[in-house]
Amino acid sequence: MAYRYVPYEDTKIFCQKVFQGYGFNEEDSAQITDILLEADLSGIESHGIQRLIRYHHEVTSGLVKMDAVPEIVKETPLSATIEGNDAMGQTLSVKSMNLAIEKAKQHGVGIVVVRNSNHYGIAGYYTQMAAKQGMIGVCMTNTESIMVPTFGSEAILGTNPIAFSMPADPIPFTFDAATTVVPRGKLEVYAKRTGVIPDGWALDENGLPSSDASRVLTNIINKSGGGILPLGGAGDATCGYKGYGFAMLCEICTGILAGGLTSRYVNRTPGRVNTCHFFMAMDYGMFGDKAEIEANLSKFLQEIRDSKKAEGATRIYTHGEKEFENHQKVIANGIGVNEKTYSEMQMIAEYTGTTAYLPKRSEE
Amino acid sequence: MAYRYVPYEDTKIFCQKVFQGYGFNEEDSAQITDILLEADLSGIESHGIQRLIRYHHEVTSGLVKMDAVPEIVKETPLSATIEGNDAMGQTLSVKSMNLAIEKAKQHGVGIVVVRNSNHYGIAGYYTQMAAKQGMIGVCMTNTESIMVPTFGSEAILGTNPIAFSMPADPIPFTFDAATTVVPRGKLEVYAKRTGVIPDGWALDENGLPSSDASRVLTNIINKSGGGILPLGGAGDATCGYKGYGFAMLCEICTGILAGGLTSRYVNRTPGRVNTCHFFMAMDYGMFGDKAEIEANLSKFLQEIRDSKKAEGATRIYTHGEKEFENHQKVIANGIGVNEKTYSEMQMIAEYTGTTAYLPKRSEE
Repeated sequence: MAYRYVPYEDTKIFCQKVFQGYGFNEEDSAQITDILLEADLSGIESHGIQRLIRYHHEVTSGLVKMDAVPEIVKETPLSATIEGNDAMGQTLSVKSMNLAIEKAKQHGVGIVVVRNSNHYGIAGYYTQMAAKQGMIGVCMTNTESIMVPTFGSEAILGTNPIAFSMPADPIPFTFDAATTVVPRGKLEVYAKRTGVIPDGWALDENGLPSSDASRVLTNIINKSGGGILPLGGAGDATCGYKGYGFAMLCEICTGILAGGLTSRYVNRTPGRVNTCHFFMAMDYGMFGDKAEIEANLSKFLQEIRDSKKAEGATRIYTHGEKEFENHQKVIANGIGVNEKTYSEMQMIAEYTGTTAYLPKRSEE
Repeated sequence: MAYRYVPYEDTKIFCQKVFQGYGFNEEDSAQITDILLEADLSGIESHGIQRLIRYHHEVTSGLVKMDAVPEIVKETPLSATIEGNDAMGQTLSVKSMNLAIEKAKQHGVGIVVVRNSNHYGIAGYYTQMAAKQGMIGVCMTNTESIMVPTFGSEAILGTNPIAFSMPADPIPFTFDAATTVVPRGKLEVYAKRTGVIPDGWALDENGLPSSDASRVLTNIINKSGGGILPLGGAGDATCGYKGYGFAMLCEICTGILAGGLTSRYVNRTPGRVNTCHFFMAMDYGMFGDKAEIEANLSKFLQEIRDSKKAEGATRIYTHGEKEFENHQKVIANGIGVNEKTYSEMQMIAEYTGTTAYLPKRSEE
């Protein structure tokens, strides 16, 4: 499907109005919009404006409870456990990371775990909140189950992303990655294109490697077995048990520590999503002179970028660099939206009474 | 090479005497031995008795400074930064993890970073120290560089293992994995067997995928380019940038936070190894009722083990399970050593005056 472009600033105002249309206050609407469009700015299309329709469904179907009042159920100087009561994932998560940052400012480390939340967008947004305050940020979330553990045939773990940020010059380090080989969105793209997915991405309903994108996707939708492989692939030849292990680490720090549900039970209770999150901020000034530590990181990242390239490769990226560079491009050229996404935006504009703010598309 | 078996208890006494022979006191010798043989007990042959020769070289060549006095160069209630002064990695690391555990007992979280250490054995040993005290343990170390970053042709990162433990019933969860696809030892095994390594493990000196084990190993030894791939493999088809990212996370938490060297500079200064470590203990009682959290983790691990198996697979393991089960086998049957390892043990016995303690091998 061909892309046409909507101006970034116009889209931002549109989204803010849309979320206000659902009943969020001005501040929360701006916050949710900022997280949503940070994905587009970073070139992470899967989590950007094309996902507005998901939030529309979650809000209008009542999965997101507009009147939810999250509660701190346990708190120590370094930590808090929050019962989300099905609040909007983004607003809950911004408050949680801010609380972690406050605790880290006072004591060096702050950790906040959250249960019974909704989808929260890109994990890297929250770790960058910490980096902007001169801290290391760590963030994880569990998700609906889609990953098959090594030697299994049943999706029992989520995509379970792990994100980590730290300030550096000129570009902060931000690692934000699902612990599956690929996200579901990538299977959908391949299903539309050729129907064939590369080896090492997915398993069929018997737990055997499959290159049939549609078969795998249908199984995922029908929960009839199989799913996406952990980072490292099938069996133990390329150590898929390591990706499976990182996914476990994510489940433990989210569902288990927060006293909530693991990915297997996410999106299974009618009317609730039940995701769990983990937010950590750490003031690395605990370990030495902050400016010196940052300078050492910046030098190290530059060394990596400057190191010898593979034959045929022109650049070695450090994590967060591509996303950082993409921002200027999107601000200049707009956000690419395909026909389907734009028609969803039109429908949402009508529903929320914001058609006056619907951004115009570039010519075909 | 055929394996013959040495009794576990005899080997333990032998190693203790060997380390005392080098000049370590009784307590430190027992400690170093415990870490070394925990690897054999866990079936991690690469880090067990076959590596005694490495420690022999490090101690006798002066890489390990027997009279080193590590110093705490910065300390807060939650943290410490330790200048290792080239002390033995194991003794330094046990003290560091104990300090992190003490801090976590008092405040909820303890983090200790160490610079200018030596090799420290298996990372999972230290995280299990925390788990035995009812805590989450996290541990990382950088190493000599061997991993090529995505789109690079030069090994600039280490194997950079990340370990994480948490108590559970009946088997604690312990994830301990290099962030490379495979360790160097695995290439050595394949070089001896067929000379051919599977796709997705390594790159040649031009940064192109190579299945030639000897070529890759020779390049690594001569530092003439290429090396082992990050978890996720070559390029971006199976997301090698994720393994590369986890390796970066390890470099940041060790070399950068400790104010030491990154893997590229490890083992490059004559007479010094210069590795850096990270130790963290976290009392999950901060987040809720400890017994309840542990019960939820135990239940979750059991669900994973009980989930549907792939066609042809008989078991799904949770992390730490295989290693846990291996203990009884080794205690019953002894530690498998090949001819080369045994002759190294003989040489070391003579050097340290401990031939009387050299364990006897089973019949061929």
